[in-house]
Amino acid sequence: MKTSASKGWQFRLHEVIYESNTPAGKVFDVALLIAIFTSIAVVMLDSVQSLHLKYGNLFYNLEWIFTGLFTIEYVLRLICIKKPFRYVFSLLGIIDMIALIPSYLSFFFIGAQSLLVFRALRLLRIFRIFKLGHFLTEINFLTSALKGSVRKISIFLLTVLMLTVILGSIMYLVEKRENGFSNIPESIYWAIVTITTVGYGDISPITPMGKFVASVVMLIGYSIIAVPTGILTHDLAMLARQKKELPESCPTCSREGHDLDAEFCKYCGASLMRD
Amino acid sequence: MKTSASKGWQFRLHEVIYESNTPAGKVFDVALLIAIFTSIAVVMLDSVQSLHLKYGNLFYNLEWIFTGLFTIEYVLRLICIKKPFRYVFSLLGIIDMIALIPSYLSFFFIGAQSLLVFRALRLLRIFRIFKLGHFLTEINFLTSALKGSVRKISIFLLTVLMLTVILGSIMYLVEKRENGFSNIPESIYWAIVTITTVGYGDISPITPMGKFVASVVMLIGYSIIAVPTGILTHDLAMLARQKKELPESCPTCSREGHDLDAEFCKYCGASLMRD
Amino acid sequence: MKTSASKGWQFRLHEVIYESNTPAGKVFDVALLIAIFTSIAVVMLDSVQSLHLKYGNLFYNLEWIFTGLFTIEYVLRLICIKKPFRYVFSLLGIIDMIALIPSYLSFFFIGAQSLLVFRALRLLRIFRIFKLGHFLTEINFLTSALKGSVRKISIFLLTVLMLTVILGSIMYLVEKRENGFSNIPESIYWAIVTITTVGYGDISPITPMGKFVASVVMLIGYSIIAVPTGILTHDLAMLARQKKELPESCPTCSREGHDLDAEFCKYCGASLMRD
Amino acid sequence: MKTSASKGWQFRLHEVIYESNTPAGKVFDVALLIAIFTSIAVVMLDSVQSLHLKYGNLFYNLEWIFTGLFTIEYVLRLICIKKPFRYVFSLLGIIDMIALIPSYLSFFFIGAQSLLVFRALRLLRIFRIFKLGHFLTEINFLTSALKGSVRKISIFLLTVLMLTVILGSIMYLVEKRENGFSNIPESIYWAIVTITTVGYGDISPITPMGKFVASVVMLIGYSIIAVPTGILTHDLAMLARQKKELPESCPTCSREGHDLDAEFCKYCGASLMRD
Repeated sequence: MKTSASKGWQFRLHEVIYESNTPAGKVFDVALLIAIFTSIAVVMLDSVQSLHLKYGNLFYNLEWIFTGLFTIEYVLRLICIKKPFRYVFSLLGIIDMIALIPSYLSFFFIGAQSLLVFRALRLLRIFRIFKLGHFLTEINFLTSALKGSVRKISIFLLTVLMLTVILGSIMYLVEKRENGFSNIPESIYWAIVTITTVGYGDISPITPMGKFVASVVMLIGYSIIAVPTGILTHDLAMLARQKKELPESCPTCSREGHDLDAEFCKYCGASLMRD
Repeated sequence: MKTSASKGWQFRLHEVIYESNTPAGKVFDVALLIAIFTSIAVVMLDSVQSLHLKYGNLFYNLEWIFTGLFTIEYVLRLICIKKPFRYVFSLLGIIDMIALIPSYLSFFFIGAQSLLVFRALRLLRIFRIFKLGHFLTEINFLTSALKGSVRKISIFLLTVLMLTVILGSIMYLVEKRENGFSNIPESIYWAIVTITTVGYGDISPITPMGKFVASVVMLIGYSIIAVPTGILTHDLAMLARQKKELPESCPTCSREGHDLDAEFCKYCGASLMRD
Repeated sequence: MKTSASKGWQFRLHEVIYESNTPAGKVFDVALLIAIFTSIAVVMLDSVQSLHLKYGNLFYNLEWIFTGLFTIEYVLRLICIKKPFRYVFSLLGIIDMIALIPSYLSFFFIGAQSLLVFRALRLLRIFRIFKLGHFLTEINFLTSALKGSVRKISIFLLTVLMLTVILGSIMYLVEKRENGFSNIPESIYWAIVTITTVGYGDISPITPMGKFVASVVMLIGYSIIAVPTGILTHDLAMLARQKKELPESCPTCSREGHDLDAEFCKYCGASLMRD
Repeated sequence: MKTSASKGWQFRLHEVIYESNTPAGKVFDVALLIAIFTSIAVVMLDSVQSLHLKYGNLFYNLEWIFTGLFTIEYVLRLICIKKPFRYVFSLLGIIDMIALIPSYLSFFFIGAQSLLVFRALRLLRIFRIFKLGHFLTEINFLTSALKGSVRKISIFLLTVLMLTVILGSIMYLVEKRENGFSNIPESIYWAIVTITTVGYGDISPITPMGKFVASVVMLIGYSIIAVPTGILTHDLAMLARQKKELPESCPTCSREGHDLDAEFCKYCGASLMRD
């Protein structure tokens, strides 16, 4: 539709950085992901004592090279869009900023370097690579189902949390301080470890009564795991039914790419519903 | 319909305390929940040794203030309804009472204060706050499904319990006292820890034969987790089908809010079934 | 139909012991279950060292009383049916025998008493009590679904077992003897503990490479748990659909109680299928 | 159709080794599986120190006998097909080779014998035995569903992995080296152990803040387990619907055995779709 030649450098830059359906955009996305992966790998390896002693200097230099590259990327992102503040305060913009700050902070505060681990948050950009592949339909489907289930699953999680507070408090009474249940927050932590069936074993009941209460908590956790699964399965089925009833392409203008819950074509406005 | 001005103070009080669809009622509900949360937080923090030593007096005073407030609430609840005993012997009434008693008991018995943890039970009132939001449909849907599944899931839990008794007894024979399986109830506790996939590791098999039996228990637990999930998912689907066949609003008087299993309008008595 | 008065005492005894739809039969079933529960409770409590020292004699006498009662029951079961060997070699018959033998064996072998734990197997009779209640429909539904899924779930379990053999063998190579993976069977036990997400922690990887392999095993276990659940949910749905297509009562003679997979009325032989 | 008498020995050998629908082929398949099982059992038992000391020589000889048998089998497989390289570079061909190499390598390298554990990979041939039974329909159904879900489940696993990198990095900051979270890869390993609800307990949080983060990780793991289950259940349902719409036998030539996603008869080419 639009020829990029007729636009300024900002527009072309925008196309490369923000969009992924041009060849240059795809190359940029892949290169960026490789840079993110490598920079995270460096932070990870540097955290291993033995490697830090051997290659500490190399890692230090690499971290600064990546900081430089990501700073340039950040500045470019700012200057090639009309409303830079939108990017700055978007989720990805804040994450990009968090990934940069620690390096610069380390000039002023010793230990700020350790905050580099937050660079791992940049992994969220990985979802862009899916867009490059043909995973878009699957991602749309999954996110739609999860969006629809969010309310029900949050009610479920709140109920579980409430249960852990009640059961943890009871366990604090039953097992007492001496057996590792040293205070109520600790007992609630134990209840979460148990109800989610994780079961570290760092705190575990010792008295017969405590073991009885623990058994009840375990059986509750084992049974209610069914709830989020049931909800999501059900919502996926509902979604699939709705999807089936809607055509994938607009029956009027035959363009595709409509949201799963769209009722009207976003291109020509005609109804997408079958009669 | 009814104007509260024409009623006595008891009626207005009742509206504030027991109902949540008036502005005053909503304010009361939110205030009550904040009080419950804070009072539980105080009990929790007081259980932490280091905080108890520092702020013990503050916590003690706060606990008495909350006891005072909750006593007033309890009395108000009693005097503004026609049949106070219904409240006293309702689930929430008993919980409210349990939350009050420990403070007063501490006059007579040392240590009764520790029973304050039962205040956590008052968290059950949190479900009222959902009513304030728009989670009612989701809660109705979930509780209907759970009600429908309760029988099947209780059969499942009973079967699991029976299995743990049998498998725990066998394990007691196989591993003997020396390896931590010191008696049959203990072995049953181990079987529950294992079949629910919690796996603390406080008791674990040591002999090759014991490890073999444990492997069988684990694989059983891993496979039968499918049962409650399958039941609930299936019941949610059945429920959704039924729901679909029933209109959300009465076709005669067009008022909404019917239960999922209602067949007749609760306002005008007309049938809700589609022909 | 039949009047028990016209039959002999054997017929009446048979009705009491083997059938549960007469008042006397219900009383017998409930009494038997109480006896089973109590006898198991005695064996369980006797296994607790401290209780054994105090009440050992009482428990010993009670065990012999129950052995006597169960022997009488066994003999009565034998003499009131026409083909006693059918009962002797049926599942419940063998279990009843296993529950009796240990007591008598203890005359000849010291320690045979400990085999009394097999009395727990008699708990399987609990499913009869469900028949007394109104759980029959739910049990029928569940067992039908499980029967239908048995083949698929056994393929799943075999695949999981094969995976654990392969992954356990690899882990034995990676972690070596010194780190607790002392031989291949032990490593396979570890793989089962890990893939079922039980995670005792009695054996856990120590080398970085071992931790990597363990992470792969965990993620496999976390993902494939979906398989048995998916299978069962799907089979429940199929079953419900079939059930819907079949009438609950015979359209010809209108008697009920047909199996879920019955195609013809078991009373009059007419087809149950809707056209 | 074809009479094996009219073909050469290579053809008959091919029929025995590669196909399982002739009596000789079935016998060969079962014999091969028994040999594989026994050879793996020998490797497993030999890894147990105490058995190795007693029966080491026997195991050594048995391993060489099996190596001989499997070498003969490998050679026979090569000479009876037209394109031997297809087999050599097929998955099963590579596995068969891997199962043979270690024995021969042990002439040159000490310790190569330990690679014999890879013989466990030959267990994958077990899926052939299912073909002998009547499990084919179930296997086809399961593999079709898994194939369809592979993309969605891989997106899910990638998201989980990304989450563990982010949460593990945060935990490394929170808990520090002293508490067992000695470096970021180690912390990521902990996050995987926790999010999959395995919970070894070899590394577990010690500070209150660490326990809080751990609780969040556990609740995430407990909730998102619903995702793969929901996906698979949904895909099984979709598949069953499609299957229902297709006839099992071709409506034109009435031959059966079509793939679940086949739209045309593979024997006569007629459409399998119902109008």
